[in-house]
Amino acid sequence: MADYFAMDSRQCAQELDSLRKIYEEYAAKGLKLDMSRGKPAPDQLDLSMDLLTITDYKGETGIDSRNYGNLEGMPEARRFFADILGAQPDEVIVGGNSSLNMMYYLIDLGWRLGFADSPAAWNACGRPKFLCPAPGYDRHFRVTEYFGFELIAVPMLPTGPDMDCVEALVKDEAVKGIWCVPLYSNPDGYSYSDETVRRLAAMKTAAPDFKIMWDNAYCVHHLTDTHDVILNMLEECRKAGHEDRALMFCSLSKVTFPGAGVAAMAASRRNIDYILKNMFPMIISFDKLNQVRHIRFLKDMDGLAAHMEKHRALLEPKFRAVLAILDEGLSGCGSIARWTKPNGGYFLSLYTLGGCAKRTVQLCREAGVVLTDAGAAYPYGVDPQDSNIRIAPTFPPLDELETASRLLCVCVRIATLEKLLQRQ
Amino acid sequence: MADYFAMDSRQCAQELDSLRKIYEEYAAKGLKLDMSRGKPAPDQLDLSMDLLTITDYKGETGIDSRNYGNLEGMPEARRFFADILGAQPDEVIVGGNSSLNMMYYLIDLGWRLGFADSPAAWNACGRPKFLCPAPGYDRHFRVTEYFGFELIAVPMLPTGPDMDCVEALVKDEAVKGIWCVPLYSNPDGYSYSDETVRRLAAMKTAAPDFKIMWDNAYCVHHLTDTHDVILNMLEECRKAGHEDRALMFCSLSKVTFPGAGVAAMAASRRNIDYILKNMFPMIISFDKLNQVRHIRFLKDMDGLAAHMEKHRALLEPKFRAVLAILDEGLSGCGSIARWTKPNGGYFLSLYTLGGCAKRTVQLCREAGVVLTDAGAAYPYGVDPQDSNIRIAPTFPPLDELETASRLLCVCVRIATLEKLLQRQ
Ligand SMILES: Cc1ncc(COP(=O)(O)O)c(C=O)c1O
Ligand SMILES: Cc1ncc(COP(=O)(O)O)c(C=O)c1O
Repeated sequence: MADYFAMDSRQCAQELDSLRKIYEEYAAKGLKLDMSRGKPAPDQLDLSMDLLTITDYKGETGIDSRNYGNLEGMPEARRFFADILGAQPDEVIVGGNSSLNMMYYLIDLGWRLGFADSPAAWNACGRPKFLCPAPGYDRHFRVTEYFGFELIAVPMLPTGPDMDCVEALVKDEAVKGIWCVPLYSNPDGYSYSDETVRRLAAMKTAAPDFKIMWDNAYCVHHLTDTHDVILNMLEECRKAGHEDRALMFCSLSKVTFPGAGVAAMAASRRNIDYILKNMFPMIISFDKLNQVRHIRFLKDMDGLAAHMEKHRALLEPKFRAVLAILDEGLSGCGSIARWTKPNGGYFLSLYTLGGCAKRTVQLCREAGVVLTDAGAAYPYGVDPQDSNIRIAPTFPPLDELETASRLLCVCVRIATLEKLLQRQ
Repeated sequence: MADYFAMDSRQCAQELDSLRKIYEEYAAKGLKLDMSRGKPAPDQLDLSMDLLTITDYKGETGIDSRNYGNLEGMPEARRFFADILGAQPDEVIVGGNSSLNMMYYLIDLGWRLGFADSPAAWNACGRPKFLCPAPGYDRHFRVTEYFGFELIAVPMLPTGPDMDCVEALVKDEAVKGIWCVPLYSNPDGYSYSDETVRRLAAMKTAAPDFKIMWDNAYCVHHLTDTHDVILNMLEECRKAGHEDRALMFCSLSKVTFPGAGVAAMAASRRNIDYILKNMFPMIISFDKLNQVRHIRFLKDMDGLAAHMEKHRALLEPKFRAVLAILDEGLSGCGSIARWTKPNGGYFLSLYTLGGCAKRTVQLCREAGVVLTDAGAAYPYGVDPQDSNIRIAPTFPPLDELETASRLLCVCVRIATLEKLLQRQ
């Protein structure tokens, strides 16, 4: 291997030739591998099987969790999530099986009616806008796109969204909020710096009802001994006199069972009261039986941390393997790619040379390895650099992951050489 | 006891005096009884405890129900609900814990975007209207009220909504749909006649995208050996060339656990495709683990029927007791009240003399027995006759139910006499 940028076109063509042979060998294997989905692997799901035989349904205050009632959630579940989210129990709503569903509901609510601090429904201003730190979680962006917001991409830095950019954009009254995955962001695995959190909390926004969608999806999903730590957004907003700005979310989907876990949100009392009042016509109560079973199973913050260590034991080797293969397969070629090395979460980002991501993903797919579509992590699915590839190492077994990662390196190199030859 | 209508005012006053003494005796007991809530009693919930220890999570086609995917529901769950609802599996979406939540979602969808057969979003026509057969389910009416529909009451007859009235009203293009609880209606316990179903399916509506919200909440909730039988609305709509008109719902809330059961809907393939496409941004998947567990527990239509027989064994004595006490306590006083005698469902209706329902409920409450607020079963909570009282016999233990029913008779008689004396 040599620095691709130091090669002349004949050398590039030669290298490309030999890589194509290697690629054909992979292609001949008839692989069917998938590195696209941020799903836990079956061995992770096995960690929570004891949850399924818990029959103790009585809430601590005598509430029968098997029956209707308590839209706000079981008291012990509110306390548990308050501890996770850093809020008071009466600042928490414990919901159903999906935090994305709660976020969708709140975007819908803002769009349709606004919040307690809104002068009008968001849709009353013509076409409201939403800030999308990119790359980010495609399903966040899609929610706001679906309702008709204009999505504004904000560059994502290792310290969080580019705050100079954010502060400039929120001078526009049509900008109603921002999507954030503050810890181990999807897909980079970055965590917001204290300065970023404080600036988000304190900044002057033209919209008086600006909302921070603080999706702390990976709040307990550490992968190493070095835990990233972030400030509490609700607290920082309160200090800055903007306590109604923060809507914080978390989910047990990647703690127990995706789609069969429990989701929760925290916000100011004023927001919680307003949201519960609006939720009343929508549903009688969420699945409190599932809430109680989860709390019985995970117990408290210590129980939760111990459980997450078991996930880490299964996930850390996968992340390590991918990182080692990327290093081995790409570092020797000069700066043709860079990738993130998260301390937690479910993803890492691979950045190719500009204009090479789509081609890389296509090459992989044609050889039997499915990656997330290039651009998926950007508003409207378009990465203006065509550089970012989201890697999801959690679901495939280790050996498949290794094969897929090796092929990925070959594909990055082929795409890079094709691009370099075009340029010459 | 004698016919109140044959009494002169002196006799009325005397009767009132002696009833007030009885009433005071009840009041002195310090009762705290509740006949207001359509909830299963704890012994009914105990019937489903075996559901809670089912650990078999594998779907029949190998789908891991513990993980993300299959927004439309588990294949075996779609088949199960297709059998209940009288549809094909691919005409079914199996949802989360609440059928009310699915109905809310669809009203929201119609309001915001319309359906596949809509020329425009429902809210585009200014103020759309919705038909509310009354008395009916308060939470249905509230959903449409919340979104801003004008609620139009339609008289509820023992054969279903007054169809002459419905057919006249749907000539207005602003009328977008109708709420129906077709079997053992809430609160009367009436079931729609074949003629009613056929006329609903066939009628010409000015709105081309008129929707029948067919909430078959009590489809398997028989209380006697005489099962009411209704026609299949989706089928009748199809025959009439209006297959996109029917949206059918059912729920396991009152089969297993309220708020921890499984809800489902059925509709034409065109509707299902459109709805799934719109649901995609909202949630990754519903709780499929709970779906699988419910199907494993209830098995099939025979298993379901056998399970519902156990509910009936607990509920039938309660309904019978209330009916016997009403008969004993009110029949001798002339036509001062009438009540329904359902073959299934969760409620019965008591109709007092006009202008006596509110006073009756107030008298009961002041003596320690809570009934549903008078008028609750009507649009905007207003019963123009002030006559209907919804009785929910399921939740209280039998002895409490008997005491509460006896007091109720006393209160009806007092309220009636007060009214008769006013009139004289
Ligand atoms: C950042 C983020 N938020 C939310 C979700 C979805 O969570 P839930 O299952 O609670 O809807 C995911 C799932 O991948 C995610 O990555
Ligand atoms: C007619 C009717 N529909 C729906 C519901 C609520 O069902 P779910 O628990 O599935 O939301 C009820 C509950 O009382 C009801 O009476």
